[in-house]
Amino acid sequence: MTSDVRPITWHADHLVLLDQTQLPGREFYVEIRTVEQLVDAIVRLVVRGAPALGAAGGYGVAIAMLQGQAAGWTASEVAAAIDRIRDARPTAVNLAWGVRRVAAFVADGLPRVLAEADAIAAEDAAANHAIGRFGADWIEQHVSRRPLRILTHCNTGTLATTEWGTALGVIRELHARGLVELVYADETRPLLQGSRLTAWELVRAGIPHVVQADGAATSTILRGLVDVAVFGADRIAANGDTANKIGSAAIGLACKEAGIPCLSAAPVSTIDLATATGDQIEIELRSGDEVVNFAGLRTAPIESAGFNPAFDVTPAKFLSAIITEVGPIELAAGQTPRSRLA
Amino acid sequence: MTSDVRPITWHADHLVLLDQTQLPGREFYVEIRTVEQLVDAIVRLVVRGAPALGAAGGYGVAIAMLQGQAAGWTASEVAAAIDRIRDARPTAVNLAWGVRRVAAFVADGLPRVLAEADAIAAEDAAANHAIGRFGADWIEQHVSRRPLRILTHCNTGTLATTEWGTALGVIRELHARGLVELVYADETRPLLQGSRLTAWELVRAGIPHVVQADGAATSTILRGLVDVAVFGADRIAANGDTANKIGSAAIGLACKEAGIPCLSAAPVSTIDLATATGDQIEIELRSGDEVVNFAGLRTAPIESAGFNPAFDVTPAKFLSAIITEVGPIELAAGQTPRSRLA
Repeated sequence: MTSDVRPITWHADHLVLLDQTQLPGREFYVEIRTVEQLVDAIVRLVVRGAPALGAAGGYGVAIAMLQGQAAGWTASEVAAAIDRIRDARPTAVNLAWGVRRVAAFVADGLPRVLAEADAIAAEDAAANHAIGRFGADWIEQHVSRRPLRILTHCNTGTLATTEWGTALGVIRELHARGLVELVYADETRPLLQGSRLTAWELVRAGIPHVVQADGAATSTILRGLVDVAVFGADRIAANGDTANKIGSAAIGLACKEAGIPCLSAAPVSTIDLATATGDQIEIELRSGDEVVNFAGLRTAPIESAGFNPAFDVTPAKFLSAIITEVGPIELAAGQTPRSRLA
Repeated sequence: MTSDVRPITWHADHLVLLDQTQLPGREFYVEIRTVEQLVDAIVRLVVRGAPALGAAGGYGVAIAMLQGQAAGWTASEVAAAIDRIRDARPTAVNLAWGVRRVAAFVADGLPRVLAEADAIAAEDAAANHAIGRFGADWIEQHVSRRPLRILTHCNTGTLATTEWGTALGVIRELHARGLVELVYADETRPLLQGSRLTAWELVRAGIPHVVQADGAATSTILRGLVDVAVFGADRIAANGDTANKIGSAAIGLACKEAGIPCLSAAPVSTIDLATATGDQIEIELRSGDEVVNFAGLRTAPIESAGFNPAFDVTPAKFLSAIITEVGPIELAAGQTPRSRLA
């Protein structure tokens, strides 16, 4: 079973990205032929989501090589261009991981580079389906209520990956098993990835859902309306502290208070064993304008600045488990990414 | 010291309301001459905020009497119109309280009714200044860092009251004492009372602030960027459980986790000793359209419904104290509204 939209596709000599800033209103694709176009697309969130950034970064190496060939760049100019892609966003470790993995093959030529980028995309799709099965199994074993009421945050579906999704892949799998009563999709301010993207995917998949303000998540959980929460990750430290879209930490804390499980679902490539704890994760501070403007309209006085951290860190102690393609890391039982994977 | 905007003013034979749905873009006032206009203004949040609703409800009794005189209503028709005002919104106890308090004087004629409504407004203004002083004193005694970094939610200023504000009155008082470094104002989705109204008041008062997404509040607190949180209340149960704008419970929980104080600031009229605990507070479920639309633009697929509880309940155990005009109710020290006021 696959989902039917392709957020990232390589075509002969260029990359085609579904412009996620225009959803759900328009399904519009952009062609990426230069490093500058790719960096701009990553910064503006035309393409976003940690696993998707891994694949986009991989194909970005091919873009840099092709642009370099056409423009007569030196090898060090190509390398510098590749570094610009790697550094376009700081928090999601997958971007740098995908770039580095593919860049190791630059000396072997474009076909080998493209094969490695294709491998990232294919592995990500396979990983997502495995995450979906492991996550659904975990929830079936640990949550007794049927059917399930599930809370999720931001977008972790096909649009955030190359296919199927991570946390949303778990929800897709549970839905395929006939177990989903309702999904509470947090709208995910300021850029509304939940209402714009997750709801769009849930509609296409026929999964019952409602969209709620992020501020509603805590009381929806504390009132007993939710059986399990599952979200993605942008970087997971060796101890299990999990950087994810701003608003995630509140969900983890509320689940702990309510005594329900909270899961992070992410491929192993999102785990950064070189980062010991969440305190060491760089949190991208995006422009405050994203908070105080909407659709061209100013929502706060012109004198008021926005404060816009794009991510927060959910401490490992708020999470029950991290669901990866090699199985769950049982944080609540004392496992850590380091103990499980090192 | 007073603030300079008048959200609610009685003029001879009608009520003038600042249309808060149009801020910060336009400072536009509407004339209210009928019960239907007033109910519509309350439902659409032209006027909002628990203390302001108490005053608006009080003047609403005068509107019903004047409309009844002009239209030849019977006494029971006037009483039914007054009940429609009382029931326009269910969660904030102040609306019903203000209506009932003034309606008791209908038999005494319009001047007595207007005097009682004026008294509610005047008492509210005085109460707010007292709340500001008690709250600032409490924070000076319990928080050591100087200057203070304060988080607030929704709008609790002059716009939510008749003058000065409750939680924002505490912040105004602290600012007057030279103690405020920065206010984190949650934008307060879906209707953005934080970015539209609180930021507007903070700009006018010259108080340094930033506007953040509601989902950022938990991590802003857990990261140690906040010294104290203070918000208002729409109804406080006898045990101290506090209904306030959706998103407040997350703040209380995060403050408890971080070990910093969280205060609710509200007049005694917001305390409902007839409601034993927060479980018994009716939570207004507003139209989901407020979540999935913004400024005429659909933000989620047309097939996706919004879930829009307007309030949540912060359990008393997450709050350090409730600041009223008769002094703090020290919840963390075992006091309750019942023990303090009954």
